[in-house]
Amino acid sequence: MRLLCRAVFAACFSFCLSTGAHAETGYDLWLRYTPVEAQYQQQYKVTRLDAPAPSPTLRAAVAELNRGFAGMLGNAPPPENRAEMDGTLFVGTPTSSPAIAAMKLPLAALGAEGYLIRNVTRNGRKAVAIAANTDIGVLYGAFAYLRMIQSRQPITDTMSAPKTQLRILNHWDNLDGTVERGYAGASIWNWHTLPGYIDPRYIDYARANASIGINGTVLNNVNARAASLSPEYIEKTAALADALRPYGIKVYLSVRWSAPVEISHLKTADPLDPAVRNWWKNKADEIYRAIPDFGGFLVKANSEGQPGPQDYHRTHADGANMIADVLKPHHGVVMWRAFVYANDPKVDRANTAYNEFVPLDGTFRDNVVLQVKNGPLDFQPREPFSPLFGAMPKTSLMMEFQITKEYLGQQTHLAYLGPLYEEALQSDTYEHGKGSTVAKVIDGSLDHHAISGIAGVANIGNDADWSGSIFNQANWYVFGRMAWDPEISARAVAQEWTKQTFTADPAFVTPVVDMMMGSRDAVVDYMTPLGLELIMAHSHHMGPGPWDVIGPREDWKAPYYHRADAVGLGFDRTTTGSDNAGQYKGPVKEAFEDIAKTPDDYLLYFHHVPWDYKMKSGRTLWNELIARYQRGVDKVSAMQAAWAAQNSHVDAARFDKTAAFLAIQHREAIWWRDACLAYFAQFSKRPFPPGYAPKYPLATYEAMPMFASPKP
Amino acid sequence: MRLLCRAVFAACFSFCLSTGAHAETGYDLWLRYTPVEAQYQQQYKVTRLDAPAPSPTLRAAVAELNRGFAGMLGNAPPPENRAEMDGTLFVGTPTSSPAIAAMKLPLAALGAEGYLIRNVTRNGRKAVAIAANTDIGVLYGAFAYLRMIQSRQPITDTMSAPKTQLRILNHWDNLDGTVERGYAGASIWNWHTLPGYIDPRYIDYARANASIGINGTVLNNVNARAASLSPEYIEKTAALADALRPYGIKVYLSVRWSAPVEISHLKTADPLDPAVRNWWKNKADEIYRAIPDFGGFLVKANSEGQPGPQDYHRTHADGANMIADVLKPHHGVVMWRAFVYANDPKVDRANTAYNEFVPLDGTFRDNVVLQVKNGPLDFQPREPFSPLFGAMPKTSLMMEFQITKEYLGQQTHLAYLGPLYEEALQSDTYEHGKGSTVAKVIDGSLDHHAISGIAGVANIGNDADWSGSIFNQANWYVFGRMAWDPEISARAVAQEWTKQTFTADPAFVTPVVDMMMGSRDAVVDYMTPLGLELIMAHSHHMGPGPWDVIGPREDWKAPYYHRADAVGLGFDRTTTGSDNAGQYKGPVKEAFEDIAKTPDDYLLYFHHVPWDYKMKSGRTLWNELIARYQRGVDKVSAMQAAWAAQNSHVDAARFDKTAAFLAIQHREAIWWRDACLAYFAQFSKRPFPPGYAPKYPLATYEAMPMFASPKP
Repeated sequence: MRLLCRAVFAACFSFCLSTGAHAETGYDLWLRYTPVEAQYQQQYKVTRLDAPAPSPTLRAAVAELNRGFAGMLGNAPPPENRAEMDGTLFVGTPTSSPAIAAMKLPLAALGAEGYLIRNVTRNGRKAVAIAANTDIGVLYGAFAYLRMIQSRQPITDTMSAPKTQLRILNHWDNLDGTVERGYAGASIWNWHTLPGYIDPRYIDYARANASIGINGTVLNNVNARAASLSPEYIEKTAALADALRPYGIKVYLSVRWSAPVEISHLKTADPLDPAVRNWWKNKADEIYRAIPDFGGFLVKANSEGQPGPQDYHRTHADGANMIADVLKPHHGVVMWRAFVYANDPKVDRANTAYNEFVPLDGTFRDNVVLQVKNGPLDFQPREPFSPLFGAMPKTSLMMEFQITKEYLGQQTHLAYLGPLYEEALQSDTYEHGKGSTVAKVIDGSLDHHAISGIAGVANIGNDADWSGSIFNQANWYVFGRMAWDPEISARAVAQEWTKQTFTADPAFVTPVVDMMMGSRDAVVDYMTPLGLELIMAHSHHMGPGPWDVIGPREDWKAPYYHRADAVGLGFDRTTTGSDNAGQYKGPVKEAFEDIAKTPDDYLLYFHHVPWDYKMKSGRTLWNELIARYQRGVDKVSAMQAAWAAQNSHVDAARFDKTAAFLAIQHREAIWWRDACLAYFAQFSKRPFPPGYAPKYPLATYEAMPMFASPKP
Repeated sequence: MRLLCRAVFAACFSFCLSTGAHAETGYDLWLRYTPVEAQYQQQYKVTRLDAPAPSPTLRAAVAELNRGFAGMLGNAPPPENRAEMDGTLFVGTPTSSPAIAAMKLPLAALGAEGYLIRNVTRNGRKAVAIAANTDIGVLYGAFAYLRMIQSRQPITDTMSAPKTQLRILNHWDNLDGTVERGYAGASIWNWHTLPGYIDPRYIDYARANASIGINGTVLNNVNARAASLSPEYIEKTAALADALRPYGIKVYLSVRWSAPVEISHLKTADPLDPAVRNWWKNKADEIYRAIPDFGGFLVKANSEGQPGPQDYHRTHADGANMIADVLKPHHGVVMWRAFVYANDPKVDRANTAYNEFVPLDGTFRDNVVLQVKNGPLDFQPREPFSPLFGAMPKTSLMMEFQITKEYLGQQTHLAYLGPLYEEALQSDTYEHGKGSTVAKVIDGSLDHHAISGIAGVANIGNDADWSGSIFNQANWYVFGRMAWDPEISARAVAQEWTKQTFTADPAFVTPVVDMMMGSRDAVVDYMTPLGLELIMAHSHHMGPGPWDVIGPREDWKAPYYHRADAVGLGFDRTTTGSDNAGQYKGPVKEAFEDIAKTPDDYLLYFHHVPWDYKMKSGRTLWNELIARYQRGVDKVSAMQAAWAAQNSHVDAARFDKTAAFLAIQHREAIWWRDACLAYFAQFSKRPFPPGYAPKYPLATYEAMPMFASPKP
């Protein structure tokens, strides 16, 4: 009788969680905790939870474990069950848990954020321990443990500690609720209802971030408003900091350089002016009174119209150091963005950050970290790594990735960014010879930097699925996982994410991970193959715009980048051109300078290549260009087919949304291919192979602005 | 055994739906379908569903009934059960259902949208019929039937047909995803992913609207962009129309008067120019090819900077009629907004719509309807009804209410608008003597107008709870219910809504409905008592701004409206002033013209009243003003207490959110009270009674702009 009722209960339970009552909007992200299949019930069984929780962070860990158990195993294990059974889960630090302390586990190597999961024997009974030196380490361990169950992996002995210190989301969220380059609804921060109301969504945001080790968040856009430093907004920020703190997430603010002038009517924002310095000191003190563990400031200065120290003929170092000094007593950091480009359009924009910052190496305070975009231009589908990596040994450098896909199809196109991040991190700078990877620069190991870190421009909004599409969630996930461990492979993370987000069934995981792994290359092919860059339409950056010449600056116009002419295509960045290749080192420099050695992926980035140049494929450049654009479209067709085959593995809502978006992507890939080829054909004057001619004349594509724009 | 398992199942089922697995974000609105208590199971039992569904609308009705049954009764009744049992539910029209046809029910009076619910006996067995002449009537009946169960009322014989034809939401949603006067996140319309992706949320939007009888939606802001008439956007709009059609919802568009110039580079938008007329004819034809049942256009012309026919020295009638003519062959309507005010600030803004439109009475085509805001000014917490109602017998007039609370606390303040709508609709115009209510004007019965209708400016966004707060949902609900039946009482609707949204337990319903019914008067008291108007802060309209003189026009400044001076307070709109009172009729006019007869609620609207004027309460005006502001704050305190007592009746998420918002409201009510009294005190120069003096000097309140603004 009891067994039967248990079976009935299990059936209802499974029904409620997996189908009827609970529509799959994507809100649960990779923390879905759906019931494990019957054959796994015994393997993951927990009979008792031994987890004293004297702190909010430990209570969050226990709550998450219980949530996971209730979802996956059908019950939360009681704390009071008999200790003489197998299956106790011990959770805690040596301080919080006498049992953990008694185990004398090797915790020293874990540092302040690492964790350990270990199968142990206690009083002759099998048990598992999740242990760390700190409460936040325990929370990270709890998520890692739940991830094992979600992935249907054995509970294996594991030690893990993050390789970078700052693992930070950058929200380009404006105070009015809009999000610059956001494609997932409005900002999740409701500044109007703060500080009075803590939306439960803030807690779910914190849980999701803690589950992948993200430990900081810059709440507001780098194009900052001074208002975020007003007393009212500091109070609101403090309320958010209180909500996120149990999950190990520090808050940071982007600051507007001219805030002292705008808020307090100072006559100048000159960093060497004592009144200015005093203003920032008082402001820092005010913030730290409200938020004792406030993280620090992110600064976009003298970049794209933002004010900065150069307005007063001071250097970036003058500015960064002044702010660093006022934060130093509070242990705050300054993240100073290196995304600057000279006002002189005759200087190759790819050269400017290097030109501006390398001479300043060694002049920054030790609590300044330069935040460098992965490529020298601007979050393109593919760029070479920024030559700043490996060129500033005396300055802490952190990576800035974009998680939101400003230039990679925005909301709808499926593009898993793991391979992009991996490619950037594994690039070899040759700073100290072979193996001097970007990963080792930004994790601080190569030059013993004081600060290490990775920032990601968030793709998070208030849409039900957080990121605008289900697969965009994977980019948030892989960002966090690679920030924790820059050496982890993109494929391994895709597998993890897929299993948790959908199902661990290999019949699903294998083809879908393959689809994800090739998806970013598909975008490169149908948008910007062979090293083309920045030929997206003006302003919104969604559709093709190789013809786009709107804007006040030469380097805001597409032809500046592609340089198409009767001779050929591409930007000569060798010694005969801008010599951007000269900013690299060793074999990388040699490869970029020599057209014969330059990889196809960067060919047009570094060279102006004749239309009839013989490519490695044997095709002419013109025919290769056509082949690449076509390959991009074909890859999207293959993605559609791969997804269509997975109908039975995915709930209807998430399946249909993804299928609809892939259809949009296919239509737009064709549009990209045809618009770009129609444009370049007027320069190449070479014929199209049969069947490859664009459907419409160029003028038709040029007249299609609104089709593309998410925000017309 | 079987009984026991059934009990276990019921327990799980109840658990899953009501607590653990299903967080109450508010997404389900009033369609929650939570399990009925055991004592009701027998009463609502349905053993068989006899509902042939040959159309999308009938399939929607059946799907909704099954959803309701599954949620409330634990199962969807099978269609194939034995007919010789009690408890069959027959659903359909005489055309769709042979059983309904055989019943020969009295459907004639129901018209094209009404429905009938009737307890019947078939072959000696008790049964229930939901019947209508049309499929959409059946859907409305299905929702009414489900509402009875949700409200724990008996299934009673019911006949209902809407009293107005057009029951329409106006979305002030911009194409870029922002919402003008929206306080619930971004627009629910994702134009970027249309037409390729139909978000399931669109269907839930349609269900919610159909459940309260709303049959039209204007998708875009009245401050319209021409782009919405481009071929790309017509294709997107058609996709939405297809999604909403099964739920009886027609789509409409706001149009920008200058669209022919902006889209097609015509030299003029003069309505009498043949090329302009031809452009609109072609555009209408293009739209109707894509959307055969397209509803028509909403036009904001020559109002607040929008272009219009007056730019070409033509009248509103010239403009409206030209558009009407091109829509006429397609059975489309023009909703022409009467919200205009003269550029001459010497004319009382309250007078201008009347001055402009009354002379045009009788000159509009029969498919034009003037859309008139409930009050002469602009959606204030309390205004007298617009004198246009009752003054244009030969012109169809529809009501424009605001559901979004631009001037009533926006997202956070709890203000149930049922009493506001009821007060406006039950106002007596005396057009044809006593009983000539506004309701009878806009339902067309008073003057036999060709078109009747009510529009509501939507409060819907992509926040999880749709409307920014749980209680804001009640305003969407009551709007729909009053559009269906302008005579329904605000209290009855509050009861309906409360039962469906929370619980039918009288221990909850009675105090919460009382709280709701007094909530709008609380806002009036702490913001604009005694007939004060438009003293909100500039631009964002959230906080107090009686001192606000920003802006290019006199009638965009607060002192224009309150006219505070050393003598007294208020706007003389009698014959000694602007004579706005003269635009009313009969006893209303007499009351408004005579300070002794004017209700306190409108006193300062119609009269400049000396500070020491003896009020009906016996207090001086100054002391009465203080008492009213204080009463508003006290009412909010009482609302907080009333809600706090309901903790056990509401899930934590919705309880906490509402409690947090009430705390914000209380804090801001105090701010309103103190800021306004500090301001008016400088004119009255009368003392504050002990304990009533504002906390800060006036300058402090004047310097608090960011505190209030949702969008700084």
